[in-house]
Formats: sequence, C-alpha cells, structure tokens
Amino acid sequence: MTDHAATLKALRAQLAEVSLINGINAVLYWDQSTYMPNGGAAARGQQLSYIAQLSHQRFTDPALGKLLEALLPYAESLPADSDEAALIRVTHREYTRATQVPLDLVAELSQHTAETYHVWVGARPENAFDRVQPYLEKTLELSRRYAECFAPFDHLADPLIDSSDYGMKAADIRTLFAELRAELVPIARAITEQAPADDAFLHQHYEPQDIEKFSLEVIKRYGYDFERGRLDRTAHPFAIRLNHGDVRITTRYPKNRLGDPLFSTLHESGHAMYEQGVNAAYEGTPLAGGASSGVHESQSRLWENVVGRSLGFWQHFYPSLQSIFPQQLGNVSLDQFYRAVNKVERSLIRTDADEVTYNLHVMIRFDLELQLLEGTLSIADLPEAWHARYQADLGVRAPDNRDGVLQDVHWYGGLIGGAFQGYTLGNILGAQFYAKALEAHPEITEQIGRGEFSTLHGWMRENIYQHGSKYSAPELIARTVGKIDIAPYITYLRNKYGALYRL
Amino acid sequence: MTDHAATLKALRAQLAEVSLINGINAVLYWDQSTYMPNGGAAARGQQLSYIAQLSHQRFTDPALGKLLEALLPYAESLPADSDEAALIRVTHREYTRATQVPLDLVAELSQHTAETYHVWVGARPENAFDRVQPYLEKTLELSRRYAECFAPFDHLADPLIDSSDYGMKAADIRTLFAELRAELVPIARAITEQAPADDAFLHQHYEPQDIEKFSLEVIKRYGYDFERGRLDRTAHPFAIRLNHGDVRITTRYPKNRLGDPLFSTLHESGHAMYEQGVNAAYEGTPLAGGASSGVHESQSRLWENVVGRSLGFWQHFYPSLQSIFPQQLGNVSLDQFYRAVNKVERSLIRTDADEVTYNLHVMIRFDLELQLLEGTLSIADLPEAWHARYQADLGVRAPDNRDGVLQDVHWYGGLIGGAFQGYTLGNILGAQFYAKALEAHPEITEQIGRGEFSTLHGWMRENIYQHGSKYSAPELIARTVGKIDIAPYITYLRNKYGALYRL
Repeated sequence: MTDHAATLKALRAQLAEVSLINGINAVLYWDQSTYMPNGGAAARGQQLSYIAQLSHQRFTDPALGKLLEALLPYAESLPADSDEAALIRVTHREYTRATQVPLDLVAELSQHTAETYHVWVGARPENAFDRVQPYLEKTLELSRRYAECFAPFDHLADPLIDSSDYGMKAADIRTLFAELRAELVPIARAITEQAPADDAFLHQHYEPQDIEKFSLEVIKRYGYDFERGRLDRTAHPFAIRLNHGDVRITTRYPKNRLGDPLFSTLHESGHAMYEQGVNAAYEGTPLAGGASSGVHESQSRLWENVVGRSLGFWQHFYPSLQSIFPQQLGNVSLDQFYRAVNKVERSLIRTDADEVTYNLHVMIRFDLELQLLEGTLSIADLPEAWHARYQADLGVRAPDNRDGVLQDVHWYGGLIGGAFQGYTLGNILGAQFYAKALEAHPEITEQIGRGEFSTLHGWMRENIYQHGSKYSAPELIARTVGKIDIAPYITYLRNKYGALYRL
Repeated sequence: MTDHAATLKALRAQLAEVSLINGINAVLYWDQSTYMPNGGAAARGQQLSYIAQLSHQRFTDPALGKLLEALLPYAESLPADSDEAALIRVTHREYTRATQVPLDLVAELSQHTAETYHVWVGARPENAFDRVQPYLEKTLELSRRYAECFAPFDHLADPLIDSSDYGMKAADIRTLFAELRAELVPIARAITEQAPADDAFLHQHYEPQDIEKFSLEVIKRYGYDFERGRLDRTAHPFAIRLNHGDVRITTRYPKNRLGDPLFSTLHESGHAMYEQGVNAAYEGTPLAGGASSGVHESQSRLWENVVGRSLGFWQHFYPSLQSIFPQQLGNVSLDQFYRAVNKVERSLIRTDADEVTYNLHVMIRFDLELQLLEGTLSIADLPEAWHARYQADLGVRAPDNRDGVLQDVHWYGGLIGGAFQGYTLGNILGAQFYAKALEAHPEITEQIGRGEFSTLHGWMRENIYQHGSKYSAPELIARTVGKIDIAPYITYLRNKYGALYRL
C-alpha cells in the first residue's frame, strides 16, 4: 500500500466511527420525536448529550487532523472532482469548523436542546410560552456562544448560517430576500384582493390512516424507497437519515385537515429521496448527506409544491383521492380541488402557507433571528414582535402564541440563527433545478400528468442527490444552474398563479 | 466529604455512564425489533457492536476495579441489607464477571447476534433453517468461547446459566426439572386422555387494534404505567428497560388468533411492571433491573397465567371482551371461554402452550442446549432432534421448522445456553410468591374478580420489584419464601386443573 492509501484508510476508519456514532444519535432523536414516552425524556437528554460529545471528540481528535494535514497535498494533486479529493477537502473543512467549538459547549447545547424540545412539546398545545421562555433565553445565549467560536465575522448570524448554508452570509441573504420580497408582495396583493378560493371541504374529518394510505401511494410513485425508510407520526414533521439504508420521514395529522398531513409527507419525502439517492460509496464519510439546507429544501419544496400541487399531478391522482374520501370530495370537482390546495391567503402557519406567501413567513423568522442575535430584541418581547410582524407583513395576528411563536420546532430543538433561510433558498433553487430538468426533458410535465416521476427523479439523482456533500452548495449550483437566481421562481409563480387568478 | 463518600461518588459517576450507554443499546435493540426498515440492518449491527464494546470497556475499566477494591472493606462494615453495601457488592460481582470476557469477544458476539436476528426474522416465515444454520453454528462456537472465559466449571452451561440465573448450575436445574417432570407428566396425561376443550372460537379473525385496545385496558388496570412505557408490535414479543422512566413492551398479532397476542401482552406487562417498580434511587447503577431470569419470569408468568387465565379475572373482564367482539364471542359462555383459554394439549408452540405442558417445552430446549454445548448434538442435526423430542415428550411433530426449531428468538438473538430455564423457574417461583401474597392478603382472589390488582401488585412491588438487583435471586427467595420449591406450583395446577377436568 502506498503511504497515501494507508493514510486514507486510517482516515476512513475514523470517519466511519464518527458516522456510526452520528447514526446512533439519529436513532435517539427519531425515537424521542416519535414514540418515546414522557418518562424517557430526562435520560434521553443525557444520552443525546453524551453521544454528541462522543461524536465531537472522535471527529476533533488531533490524530484525525494529522491524517488530514498529511493528505492535503495529495488532494491538491488530484482532479478537483475526484471523490478522494472531495473527501479530504470536505472533511478538512468540517474538521476545521468542529475544532473551533469546545467540547463542553457541544455537551451543553445537546443536553439543552433535548430538554427544550421536550418542554416545547408539552407547552405548545397549552399555549404556554412562559414555560419555554427561560429555555429559549438559554438557547439564545448558547447560540451566541456558538457563533463567537468562529470570530471574526461580519454578523453574529454568519457562522450559524454558514453551518447550514455554507458560503452564505446574513448580508447576502438580506439582499436576496429584499429582491424576492419586492416581487412577491405585489403578486400576493393582487391575488388576495380577489375573492378567496373555497377550501372549506379540506377542513372536514379525514381519517388519518386513509390520508396515510394515499400519501404512501404517492411517495412510492415518487420513488421513495420503503426498503430503506418508513413513515411515522410526530409533533413536528421531519426527515432523518439514520444511515444510507435507513432514511425515515414523519408527519402529523391535525384535526379536520387533509392538506397539512398530505403535503407534509410529500415535503419530507423530498428530503428523504435526496438522502436515499446519495452515492452509497460515500457512506461512513462526511460526503454522505445533503449539501446544504437550501439545496435540501429545494427538493422538499419541489416534491411538495412544484410537483405535488401541480394541475398535472392532481389530474392523475384526484380520482383516487376521491374514491378514498367519497363523502368529503365526491361533489368537489378537480378544478375546485386544485384551486383549494393552491389557495393564496394571508395566514398564520408557515408549514400550511401557500407558495406565494410562504417566503414572507420565512423572512419574518429570518429577521427576528437577526434581531435576537444582535440584541435588539429580547426573548421576552419575541411573542409580541412576532405578532407585530405578522400584522405588518401578512395582515393577520394569531389569537395566541401556539399559532404564533410556538408554531415551529426549530428554535426549540436547535439554535437561533440559520434555522429558516434554507426554506426560501430552497424555493428559489427548486424552481431553478426544475427549469433545468425541464429544459433537458420537456416530457416531464406530461409524465407527471400520468403519475410518472422517474425522469424528474432521475435528473435530480443524477445532478444533485448522488453527489451528497461532495460539492458544496455554491459548487453544486455552479455545476447545474450557474448561480442562485430568483427569476425562474418568479416566472413559475407568475405562470401558475397568473393562470389561477387571471393576474 | 469522607474518603468513602468521594470514592462512592466516583464509582456512581462511572456506573451512570455505563448505564447511559446500556440505555442507548436498548433503544437500538428496541428499534431494530420494531420499526427499523430492512435497509438499516447492516448499520444497526455495527452500532450494537460498537455500543456493546463501549459499555464493556467502560465497565471493565481498571479504574473502576480500583474504586471497588477501595470500597469493599467499607461495604463489609455496613449492614448487609444497606443499599450502599449492595451497590458495592453487586457491582463488584458484575465487574469480576465482565473482566473475564475479552473485548473482542464482546464485539464479535454483539455484531453476530444482531446479524443472526436479522437473518432469522427473514428465514422463519419462509421456513428456511438452512439460512440460519451457519449463523447458529457460529453462535454455538461463540457461546462455548464465552463460557470458557469462566473456567473452571462443572458444566460448560454453568457460566451461561449463572449469567441469567445467578447461583444456579446445570446439575441443580436438571434435578429440579426431573422432580417437576415426574409431577407434570401424569397430570398432563390424565387431562389429555379426556375430550379436549373446544377453543375453535379463539381461532377466528380478531382485529388486531381491537385486541390491542382490550389488552391496553387490562394492563393499565394491572398497574403498568404508560407515562413510562408503551406497547408496540414485533416479530417475537419482549419487554425492554430503556431506563427507569421508559420500560416498553411489544407483542405480535398472528392471523386468526385472540389468545396469543392477548396473553403475550399480559406476559410482557409482568416483566415491565417489575422493571417499573424498581427503586428509582438505583437508576444508573447495576442495582436497577430485575434480579434474575427466573424471578423475572415469575412476574410475567404470574400476570399472564395465575392472574390472566384465572376464573375471577374473566368473570370481571369477559363481558367487556364480548362487547368488543360480539360476532366472535356473543354466543360463547364465560365457562366455555375460560375452558378454552386454559385448554391443555400436546402442542407445538411454547409461547402458546398451556400451564401444564409449558414446562415440557422448556425442558426440551434446556436439554438440547446442554447437548449442543456438550458436543453430543450438532446444529445440523438440531431440527431433527427437536422434532424427535417433541414426538417423544409431547407426542406431536411440527410439519416444518418454522414451528419447530425456528419458533423462538432466543438462540437467534443471543447465546445458546441459559436461555430457557428461567421460564420454568419463573413458573415455580411465581406460584410461591403468589401463595405468599395470598397468605398475607387473602382478599386478593376476590379483588381479581372485581378487576382490582393493587393489593397483589403492591405485595410484589414491596417484596420483589423495588429491590431490583439489590438482592441476588437466591437472597430474594430466602427473604420471601425460603427456598425454591415446586410444591405450591403443583398444588396450584392440581387445584385449578382438577376443577376444570375433574381429575
């Protein structure tokens, strides 16, 4: 064996251990969010914290750093797109990042987020912001301490954004969001000035297991592989990669709702198909797993909306849905149904928001995160700041905090900062990727109308999924669509909603 | 702080880490056996092996040994029934045992049993013994290597028996089983010479979720705490302690069966109530968790059979069961039902066997384990040896290996040796404990007839559950009933089945 081969082998062995530990972390998290009884919460918090520390320790082991140092010149000698070069480059980047965070902070963060999640699960249904407030204050403090590890930076949020959307800064996103906002606001206004679509029939009793049956059928057709995954119920839907052979999704079934659980499942299936599509050879290395939050959301938002709320999709699937729910939908025409699932309105809940106003929900959260980190907003004032922004931007005010600041899991199960921008980046990128796929395969539209998704799925797997984290998001974007650009997304919205609302 | 206090604190800290790691192991195992998709099996095997090694490493850390050595004289100075003395004594015993097993064997065992379990889950429904045979050969080899770690011993099975039923040897059990067998065989013969009870109505379609609903109601009444537990589905039912706040049970719903899933659930609830009842102060130490396999089975078999198949129990619960299954049971009288769930027959499946013949199933397995370990029987010959013993002892022969040697999970998810004797020890001990509880509280019988179990549960918690592993099984038996004795069990069987069959 050459020196490089032996060093690489040693590197891979240690990375495989880290990957195995992270897989254990995922099982613990998944169980915590799905089936764990209340009594298990305290021990689980300790376990998650222990495993996070173990992972951090093994990944920041100076021996690993030495292996990487020894391999960097070799990586430089390889073609930039070789898997080995990428493995060394990406691992070195992640190693450098990880070594900047002290172990005790990792431990504290992990224990704290597990506890906070548990408190939030209980507090949300009871509208009890006061119960989470002290936890959130600690989260903000920890988020700041985490960000400080990466000083210097332009904005305290930059390191937090960088860790989910590598290569982006608060300032870039502010500019991009302002540009997008200028386009979205007039579209939203033009639509909401018209009479709203009737979606009352979506708000009847739909038996969860029947919705589930239908959702499973759809995502199977999408190409989600149930040999390597499963669907469970949770308080806040998520997709999670346990390992290459096990990528699970979750959803929830609120009372008298059809759209929420269904589109949630389609959304999470997009994340999961991305993870399932990563080159199996990357297993056990930092190359396994999606490139960034934005690229990940491009897939969830694509399969949820661009595909799952399209007319073609429902031309194919609506008869089957009607046959499952004859009482609820028997007298609802395809056109009525299509309008209802694409109803544009100034609403309260991000995950239920339509494609036009969705990004306004994200921008509110993004701005509040920056203000919290900057110290211009306190956690105590957050609920009212939330209401005020909803009033100003969307013209609505939640009657309580449950549907206000308590609605999203992110701040209650992770850091404040960098948690939300990915959704809007995803909407933008999803439209770009979809336009590119259509350019290559114009037949995709017609295939969707027949319930066939293999060409679209194939393009995504070929151009996005298989690469995992081999390319950073900026590199992946450069390879596929050049650069991030809101134009295809705006065109998509204008075309779709222009037809629906005769704008 | 005194020296002892500081040393004890250090001991407790390291034990808490081991306990935390074991709790992670339990989550991984539980998920593997309930929800994990097929694709996750390979990674799970690696994770289980990794965690088993980590636990072993931390528990056999020489530093822990030094702490124990330092504390032993202190323990001797304490009253024998003090919690601290027990903590030091039991931990020292377990530490000594664990240090006799090399780390690489622990790793190999854990990886191997996870793989074997996965192969068995696939092979059993397809009746494919040939697929598990090479795995089982390896298991036998590993079981021998494991036992050899504890040389010298009288019989190779002794260390394996000792690790689940501390203080017992193959020779003791052979004697006890021979004594029991001499009593059981004539009872079984006398009953099976009569016309069999009609239980055809138990073998109709019963909707799993309705059985589940009823089972949940019963075990809630038993006192199983759902805030600290849950019920899921699996291939082979088990109870598992994740930690003091999280003790789960599982069951399965074979087609056209009412009794199997119902009594399985009652059985596992007995294990789980035992674990839930352990003194919370023992959490994070080797004192948490049941005393032995036999004492554990005394509880599962008690709540399944002595309580769950009693006439009083059904006098209370049968009307409710009938109302859930009017079509299947509307025309079945209480007496017919009671006879059916206590039908004695020479049957194929251990878990479905009646109380009279059940121990004959166990004895077959116990003897086969000894022969395998002694080398007088090969794995290749095991299926036929199984059939031959069933023919000789029970007069039946399974049409295939699925209901023969493939029926129990034990050899496919653990070692060969020490896996089965606990059930029969449990039957014997359960009857002894129950007789003792009745002595103290004669009203228990009548309470069961009203669906009230708190006096019985309370006696068990007080005398058995709370102590966890503080007392070894022999110590616990000495404290409660003196010594192991088949007489109460035989009396119980004679009374119950004498009335049923007019013996």
